[in-house]
Amino acid sequence: MLEKDCIFCQPQNRNYLLENQTAGLLLDIHPVSPGHALIIAKQHYPTFFDLPLNVRMDMNTLLDEAKTYLDQRYHPAGYNIDINVGPVGGQKIMHCHIHLIPRYHYEDQQQTTLQKYLPLDLT
Amino acid sequence: MLEKDCIFCQPQNRNYLLENQTAGLLLDIHPVSPGHALIIAKQHYPTFFDLPLNVRMDMNTLLDEAKTYLDQRYHPAGYNIDINVGPVGGQKIMHCHIHLIPRYHYEDQQQTTLQKYLPLDLT
Repeated sequence: MLEKDCIFCQPQNRNYLLENQTAGLLLDIHPVSPGHALIIAKQHYPTFFDLPLNVRMDMNTLLDEAKTYLDQRYHPAGYNIDINVGPVGGQKIMHCHIHLIPRYHYEDQQQTTLQKYLPLDLT
Repeated sequence: MLEKDCIFCQPQNRNYLLENQTAGLLLDIHPVSPGHALIIAKQHYPTFFDLPLNVRMDMNTLLDEAKTYLDQRYHPAGYNIDINVGPVGGQKIMHCHIHLIPRYHYEDQQQTTLQKYLPLDLT
Protein backbone atom coordinates (compact mmCIF):
# COMPACT_ATOMS: atom_id res chain seq x y z
CA MET A 1 0.00 0.00 0.00
CA LEU A 2 2.68 2.50 -1.10
CA GLU A 3 2.32 4.71 -4.16
CA LYS A 4 5.32 5.17 -6.39
CA ASP A 5 4.52 8.80 -7.20
CA CYS A 6 3.70 9.88 -3.61
CA ILE A 7 6.33 11.93 -1.77
CA PHE A 8 5.36 10.45 1.63
CA CYS A 9 5.74 6.91 0.26
CA GLN A 10 9.37 7.43 -0.83
CA PRO A 11 12.00 5.62 1.27
CA GLN A 12 13.97 8.82 1.95
CA ASN A 13 10.85 10.38 3.54
CA ARG A 14 10.23 7.44 5.86
CA ASN A 15 13.08 8.11 8.30
CA TYR A 16 10.75 9.12 11.11
CA LEU A 17 11.75 11.02 14.26
CA LEU A 18 9.17 9.03 16.21
CA GLU A 19 7.06 6.15 15.04
CA ASN A 20 4.79 3.31 15.98
CA GLN A 21 3.30 0.46 13.99
CA THR A 22 1.31 2.46 11.43
CA ALA A 23 2.30 6.14 11.84
CA GLY A 24 5.46 8.25 11.84
CA LEU A 25 6.56 11.80 12.70
CA LEU A 26 8.54 14.14 10.42
CA LEU A 27 9.30 17.85 10.67
CA ASP A 28 7.69 19.91 7.91
CA ILE A 29 10.32 21.12 5.41
CA HIS A 30 8.39 24.41 5.08
CA PRO A 31 7.54 25.04 8.76
CA VAL A 32 4.84 27.52 9.68
CA SER A 33 6.66 27.87 13.04
CA PRO A 34 9.71 26.22 14.67
CA GLY A 35 8.97 22.57 15.33
CA HIS A 36 6.06 22.28 12.86
CA ALA A 37 5.61 18.51 12.68
CA LEU A 38 3.64 16.08 10.53
CA ILE A 39 2.10 12.86 11.78
CA ILE A 40 1.94 10.65 8.70
CA ALA A 41 0.26 7.33 8.02
CA LYS A 42 2.98 4.87 7.00
CA GLN A 43 0.76 3.33 4.34
CA HIS A 44 -0.92 5.31 1.59
CA TYR A 45 -4.41 6.45 2.56
CA PRO A 46 -5.55 9.56 0.66
CA THR A 47 -7.42 11.39 3.43
CA PHE A 48 -8.18 11.25 7.15
CA PHE A 49 -11.61 9.82 6.37
CA ASP A 50 -10.01 6.89 4.51
CA LEU A 51 -8.00 5.73 7.54
CA PRO A 52 -8.85 2.48 9.28
CA LEU A 53 -9.42 2.76 13.01
CA ASN A 54 -6.10 1.20 14.02
CA VAL A 55 -4.18 3.83 12.03
CA ARG A 56 -6.20 6.66 13.57
CA MET A 57 -5.44 5.20 16.99
CA ASP A 58 -1.72 5.09 16.23
CA MET A 59 -1.79 8.67 14.90
CA ASN A 60 -3.63 9.72 18.06
CA THR A 61 -0.95 8.09 20.22
CA LEU A 62 1.76 9.77 18.19
CA LEU A 63 0.11 13.19 18.65
CA ASP A 64 0.69 12.88 22.41
CA GLU A 65 4.26 11.67 21.96
CA ALA A 66 4.97 14.44 19.46
CA LYS A 67 3.67 17.07 21.90
CA THR A 68 6.03 15.74 24.58
CA TYR A 69 8.91 15.78 22.06
CA LEU A 70 8.15 19.32 20.88
CA ASP A 71 7.46 20.67 24.40
CA GLN A 72 10.93 19.54 25.51
CA ARG A 73 12.75 20.97 22.49
CA TYR A 74 10.79 24.09 21.55
CA HIS A 75 8.77 25.10 24.65
CA PRO A 76 5.77 26.45 22.73
CA ALA A 77 2.84 28.18 24.45
CA GLY A 78 0.12 26.43 22.43
CA TYR A 79 -0.60 24.27 19.41
CA ASN A 80 -2.74 23.97 16.32
CA ILE A 81 -3.72 20.51 15.11
CA ASP A 82 -4.83 20.76 11.49
CA ILE A 83 -5.95 18.18 8.96
CA ASN A 84 -6.73 19.24 5.39
CA VAL A 85 -9.13 16.91 3.57
CA GLY A 86 -9.13 17.01 -0.22
CA PRO A 87 -7.62 19.54 -2.63
CA VAL A 88 -10.42 22.06 -1.97
CA GLY A 89 -9.62 21.66 1.76
CA GLY A 90 -6.02 22.69 1.01
CA GLN A 91 -4.59 19.16 0.89
CA LYS A 92 -1.75 19.16 -1.64
CA ILE A 93 -0.32 15.73 -0.90
CA MET A 94 -3.02 13.11 -1.09
CA HIS A 95 -1.47 10.91 1.59
CA CYS A 96 -3.05 11.51 4.99
CA HIS A 97 -1.03 13.60 7.42
CA ILE A 98 -1.81 15.71 10.49
CA HIS A 99 -0.11 19.07 11.05
CA LEU A 100 0.99 19.66 14.66
CA ILE A 101 2.06 23.30 14.82
CA PRO A 102 3.65 24.76 17.93
CA ARG A 103 2.56 28.33 18.68
CA TYR A 104 4.61 30.94 20.52
CA HIS A 105 3.89 34.13 22.41
CA TYR A 106 5.93 36.18 19.93
CA GLU A 107 3.42 35.21 17.23
CA ASP A 108 0.59 37.12 18.92
CA GLN A 109 0.53 39.79 16.26
CA GLN A 110 0.47 37.18 13.53
CA GLN A 111 -2.37 35.43 15.36
CA THR A 112 -4.33 38.65 15.14
CA THR A 113 -3.92 38.51 11.38
CA LEU A 114 -4.82 34.84 11.34
CA GLN A 115 -8.02 35.50 13.23
CA LYS A 116 -9.41 37.10 10.10
CA TYR A 117 -9.18 33.77 8.33
CA LEU A 118 -9.04 30.89 10.74
CA PRO A 119 -11.82 29.05 12.52
CA LEU A 120 -11.01 30.52 15.88
CA ASP A 121 -13.48 30.17 18.64
CA LEU A 122 -16.69 32.05 19.26
CA THR A 123 -15.94 35.70 19.89
CA MET B 1 -17.30 17.66 35.51
CA LEU B 2 -19.17 20.71 34.20
CA GLU B 3 -17.98 24.29 34.76
CA LYS B 4 -20.57 26.88 35.68
CA ASP B 5 -18.84 29.67 33.75
CA CYS B 6 -18.17 27.62 30.58
CA ILE B 7 -20.42 28.29 27.58
CA PHE B 8 -20.15 24.68 26.37
CA CYS B 9 -21.23 23.39 29.80
CA GLN B 10 -24.50 25.36 29.81
CA PRO B 11 -27.69 23.29 29.39
CA GLN B 12 -28.89 25.38 26.42
CA ASN B 13 -25.69 24.54 24.54
CA ARG B 14 -26.00 20.80 25.07
CA ASN B 15 -28.86 20.18 22.61
CA TYR B 16 -26.65 18.28 20.19
CA LEU B 17 -27.48 17.54 16.54
CA LEU B 18 -25.66 14.23 16.86
CA GLU B 19 -24.17 12.66 19.94
CA ASN B 20 -22.74 9.57 21.53
CA GLN B 21 -21.78 8.76 25.10
CA THR B 22 -19.13 11.45 25.65
CA ALA B 23 -19.26 13.82 22.65
CA GLY B 24 -21.81 15.97 20.83
CA LEU B 25 -22.13 17.96 17.60
CA LEU B 26 -23.26 21.58 17.30
CA LEU B 27 -23.15 24.03 14.40
CA ASP B 28 -20.84 26.99 15.00
CA ILE B 29 -22.84 30.17 15.60
CA HIS B 30 -20.17 32.13 13.69
CA PRO B 31 -19.58 29.73 10.79
CA VAL B 32 -16.47 30.08 8.64
CA SER B 33 -18.48 28.36 5.88
CA PRO B 34 -21.98 26.83 5.61
CA GLY B 35 -22.19 23.76 7.85
CA HIS B 36 -19.20 24.64 10.06
CA ALA B 37 -19.62 22.17 12.91
CA LEU B 38 -18.09 21.65 16.34
CA ILE B 39 -17.48 18.25 17.92
CA ILE B 40 -17.53 18.95 21.65
CA ALA B 41 -16.61 16.84 24.65
CA LYS B 42 -19.72 16.58 26.85
CA GLN B 43 -17.66 16.95 30.02
CA HIS B 44 -15.31 19.83 30.70
CA TYR B 45 -11.75 19.08 29.56
CA PRO B 46 -9.74 22.22 28.76
CA THR B 47 -7.77 21.00 25.73
CA PHE B 48 -7.44 18.08 23.33
CA PHE B 49 -4.39 16.89 25.22
CA ASP B 50 -6.43 16.66 28.44
CA LEU B 51 -8.95 14.20 26.96
CA PRO B 52 -9.07 10.61 28.16
CA LEU B 53 -8.82 8.01 25.42
CA ASN B 54 -12.51 7.04 25.49
CA VAL B 55 -13.55 10.63 24.81
CA ARG B 56 -11.09 10.94 21.94
CA MET B 57 -12.52 7.71 20.51
CA ASP B 58 -16.06 9.06 20.76
CA MET B 59 -15.02 12.36 19.14
CA ASN B 60 -13.31 10.37 16.38
CA THR B 61 -16.50 8.38 15.77
CA LEU B 62 -18.53 11.58 15.71
CA LEU B 63 -16.18 13.12 13.12
CA ASP B 64 -17.17 10.38 10.68
CA GLU B 65 -20.86 10.72 11.48
CA ALA B 66 -20.63 14.51 11.18
CA LYS B 67 -19.02 14.21 7.74
CA THR B 68 -21.88 11.97 6.58
CA TYR B 69 -24.40 14.46 8.02
CA LEU B 70 -22.70 17.46 6.38
CA ASP B 71 -22.09 15.69 3.05
CA GLN B 72 -25.82 14.96 2.74
CA ARG B 73 -26.94 18.47 3.63
CA TYR B 74 -24.23 20.75 2.25
CA HIS B 75 -22.33 18.72 -0.41
CA PRO B 76 -18.93 20.30 0.25
CA ALA B 77 -15.87 19.52 -1.87
CA GLY B 78 -13.45 19.17 1.06
CA TYR B 79 -12.96 19.73 4.76
CA ASN B 80 -10.63 21.22 7.34
CA ILE B 81 -10.40 19.57 10.74
CA ASP B 82 -8.89 22.05 13.19
CA ILE B 83 -8.16 21.90 16.90
CA ASN B 84 -6.80 24.95 18.71
CA VAL B 85 -4.84 24.17 21.86
CA GLY B 86 -4.43 26.94 24.43
CA PRO B 87 -5.05 30.68 24.13
CA VAL B 88 -1.82 31.18 22.16
CA GLY B 89 -3.06 28.48 19.79
CA GLY B 90 -6.23 30.51 19.19
CA GLN B 91 -8.44 28.62 21.66
CA LYS B 92 -10.94 31.09 23.10
CA ILE B 93 -13.20 28.63 24.91
CA MET B 94 -11.17 26.40 27.19
CA HIS B 95 -13.46 23.39 26.74
CA CYS B 96 -12.13 21.00 24.13
CA HIS B 97 -13.82 21.11 20.72
CA ILE B 98 -12.91 20.14 17.18
CA HIS B 99 -13.81 22.36 14.22
CA LEU B 100 -15.10 20.44 11.18
CA ILE B 101 -15.28 22.98 8.38
CA PRO B 102 -16.80 22.11 5.01
CA ARG B 103 -14.97 23.67 2.06
CA TYR B 104 -16.54 24.56 -1.30
CA HIS B 105 -15.28 25.13 -4.81
CA TYR B 106 -16.50 28.72 -4.75
CA GLU B 107 -14.04 29.43 -1.95
CA ASP B 108 -11.03 28.78 -4.17
CA GLN B 109 -10.06 32.44 -4.26
CA GLN B 110 -10.31 32.67 -0.48
CA GLN B 111 -8.18 29.54 -0.22
CA THR B 112 -5.52 31.34 -2.21
CA THR B 113 -5.53 34.05 0.44
CA LEU B 114 -5.54 31.45 3.20
CA GLN B 115 -2.48 29.77 1.73
CA LYS B 116 -0.45 32.74 2.90
CA TYR B 117 -1.28 31.86 6.48
CA LEU B 118 -2.35 28.27 6.83
CA PRO B 119 -0.27 25.12 7.22
CA LEU B 120 -1.05 23.91 3.76
CA ASP B 121 1.01 21.11 2.37
CA LEU B 122 4.49 21.14 0.95
CA THR B 123 4.54 23.14 -2.26
